[in-house]
Amino acid sequence: MSDENCNNVKSLETTIELAVRFSETDAMGVVWHGNYLKFMEDAREEFGRQFKMEYLDVYGHGFFIPIVNSNINHKASVYYGQKVGITVKLEFRDAAKIIFHYDIYNLDTKELAAVGTTTQVFLHEKTRILELSKPEFYKEWENKQNWSE
Amino acid sequence: MSDENCNNVKSLETTIELAVRFSETDAMGVVWHGNYLKFMEDAREEFGRQFKMEYLDVYGHGFFIPIVNSNINHKASVYYGQKVGITVKLEFRDAAKIIFHYDIYNLDTKELAAVGTTTQVFLHEKTRILELSKPEFYKEWENKQNWSE
Amino acid sequence: MSDENCNNVKSLETTIELAVRFSETDAMGVVWHGNYLKFMEDAREEFGRQFKMEYLDVYGHGFFIPIVNSNINHKASVYYGQKVGITVKLEFRDAAKIIFHYDIYNLDTKELAAVGTTTQVFLHEKTRILELSKPEFYKEWENKQNWSE
Amino acid sequence: MSDENCNNVKSLETTIELAVRFSETDAMGVVWHGNYLKFMEDAREEFGRQFKMEYLDVYGHGFFIPIVNSNINHKASVYYGQKVGITVKLEFRDAAKIIFHYDIYNLDTKELAAVGTTTQVFLHEKTRILELSKPEFYKEWENKQNWSE
Repeated sequence: MSDENCNNVKSLETTIELAVRFSETDAMGVVWHGNYLKFMEDAREEFGRQFKMEYLDVYGHGFFIPIVNSNINHKASVYYGQKVGITVKLEFRDAAKIIFHYDIYNLDTKELAAVGTTTQVFLHEKTRILELSKPEFYKEWENKQNWSE
Repeated sequence: MSDENCNNVKSLETTIELAVRFSETDAMGVVWHGNYLKFMEDAREEFGRQFKMEYLDVYGHGFFIPIVNSNINHKASVYYGQKVGITVKLEFRDAAKIIFHYDIYNLDTKELAAVGTTTQVFLHEKTRILELSKPEFYKEWENKQNWSE
Repeated sequence: MSDENCNNVKSLETTIELAVRFSETDAMGVVWHGNYLKFMEDAREEFGRQFKMEYLDVYGHGFFIPIVNSNINHKASVYYGQKVGITVKLEFRDAAKIIFHYDIYNLDTKELAAVGTTTQVFLHEKTRILELSKPEFYKEWENKQNWSE
Repeated sequence: MSDENCNNVKSLETTIELAVRFSETDAMGVVWHGNYLKFMEDAREEFGRQFKMEYLDVYGHGFFIPIVNSNINHKASVYYGQKVGITVKLEFRDAAKIIFHYDIYNLDTKELAAVGTTTQVFLHEKTRILELSKPEFYKEWENKQNWSE
């Protein structure tokens, strides 16, 4: 993903660690590929808690923010008994989209296990209609953040 | 469970078959124990479709029917690539409870892989208060069924 | 995905239907986005059964075929109680990669709910080293198929 | 479960806390009942780490310890955005069984959300035959623990 992080993009990021669950492995002995979306969700939610922009806050302002795209590139396996670290980064965008980048590390081997992105849009809660501009509450939130460059 | 099925209990039953998903196996190469609750739910929902008593019908009458107990006894493993057959049986009860029994077979080995039960109660949708008698719509449904003895 | 399907690409495809599980929905009342990877796996496995190229066959020839990329574009929601149809298409490739395209329809609304792709590579089972050419057994399998153009 | 905890049973216990994942909720807005088995597994694994008796240690001694029974009684709901605390307790048993009791609290409401038990047995790894006496390594482990009464 680093090639997309051009010089002057402002961003916010946080990192979580978690132990792989036995139920998350598959018959090949490694984490089933679809479960990375759970790890990414965990990281995104910790981001929300830390930067005070959680799903429930968004609902409170009358919006859903469903995921319209997810993409994962797998680079190394993670086995049962290992830990993963997930760094989630939000880059500042002019468009009314919330795009997170994820780096998922196998903390036992220090390998990069996967990189991913998710894209969310703003839907009006009642009509489920797409909002094409950033909602006011979101712009206010953006203005309060201490973006790193 | 057969010891609970005394002579004169009226019951309704149906059977489904499904192929084990790769994502449902774990690092021991077998179906992860918690996924049997998904198989049981699949069978319960087919029961609902067949006998015209689905979750959404129940909601339409103002009730939730949450699961208040689940129990599974595992007897044999199911491996990736194998199929399971689940027979789900509803026994007629005087109490305001919906209790299903499940027999889960490994169709490849013909072994009984697990037996289980789930217990559901009636909660009023708005208040989430427990209903101690069978709701009218449910009694009417019971009366229409062709219970086998 | 249709823009990638240029005129002369040979392909094989199949379609499955499945009912959404209650456990697959989330608190927004729709199928949780990560569960589409399970639907895609179901379709891929049916493809394997139909065209006689299953995971276990591949293992038998000494290879793993892990997923190295997955991508999903969500276009419409699927609610509990609805059915989905998944068409999975394998396009003939010169490279030693297995790339499937998926169209996931909400069969109740006839809407296209999502499109996705997965990319798999060949790893030698014992060494987990990447194989850069198509294995012989795979080329033989390709030659036997009745690809449509 | 407290009625089963008679006076002189020796036990070991630990407690974990975790935030409910969005993917763990269902269309009723609460944690899907089957996901409690994941919470219980998380607690059991933390128990294993803390008391040095993990799955991989057990494998190292030539045994599997599959779950042969699981039981859950649900008492209150847990909603998305809430946290749960799980206390897992192992009671000393003469039989060659590992039985854990779980109390699952909704930490936001302080309610007891569920109580559960799981039963595991010792299977020889290679033959998958049931071991009827406690294996030596397990008895040694038991002897080293500081059981509370």
